[in-house]
Amino acid sequence: MTGTGAARPSDGSGDDQLASYRASIDNIDAALVHLLAERFKITKAVGYHKAVIGLPASDPVREDQQIARLQALAAESGLDPAFTESFLRFIVSEVIRHHQALKGESQSPSPLEPPPFLGSDGPAL
Amino acid sequence: MTGTGAARPSDGSGDDQLASYRASIDNIDAALVHLLAERFKITKAVGYHKAVIGLPASDPVREDQQIARLQALAAESGLDPAFTESFLRFIVSEVIRHHQALKGESQSPSPLEPPPFLGSDGPAL
Repeated sequence: MTGTGAARPSDGSGDDQLASYRASIDNIDAALVHLLAERFKITKAVGYHKAVIGLPASDPVREDQQIARLQALAAESGLDPAFTESFLRFIVSEVIRHHQALKGESQSPSPLEPPPFLGSDGPAL
Repeated sequence: MTGTGAARPSDGSGDDQLASYRASIDNIDAALVHLLAERFKITKAVGYHKAVIGLPASDPVREDQQIARLQALAAESGLDPAFTESFLRFIVSEVIRHHQALKGESQSPSPLEPPPFLGSDGPAL
């Protein structure tokens, strides 16, 4: 190890170790964004499906099951289970906001357009 | 398409379309948990590194750069840019909480132990 005496910029620029960590974080963040985009495509389809068949946007039993399952996965992978619950609730609150918006649209006189995710046939009604 | 007249349980159980969507969401959520676990392993190493070399836990310039980059990726992949910013700030607030805890530890008389992520040599100090 080298000493700690060398002058360093206060923002960490020029620190190769920090730059290497940040490059990994950037790769992971890009993967997270793409996974979240895919997740919202699916939950948009779920929202459409629920609005059409008349299910409520929120499903507390399903949410509790998801949290329990993800906390078990978190424990295996070393993620804080409390953070995992906060994270899922954060995502779900955004999804429910989308679902409620869709439900509002479904009460308008114009027919719902299925999201592109579903293809031209839409869901089995 | 089939008609909408068939009786359905109010929670959507027995609905094959909904079950199929949920199976995909479960797969994506598992991937998200594992990626987040990996991200926190790296940010833990960053927190240790920052505490040792005396950098502050928070870096607003870096955060703004991350948000701008992820919003560009979000726009490409169809994710709401406003949600992307909220998401990153949610993650970063958890990371900063960890970093501040580490910084507190680094002021104690006992030497910091490098996290296992860094291997036995630890960071280049």
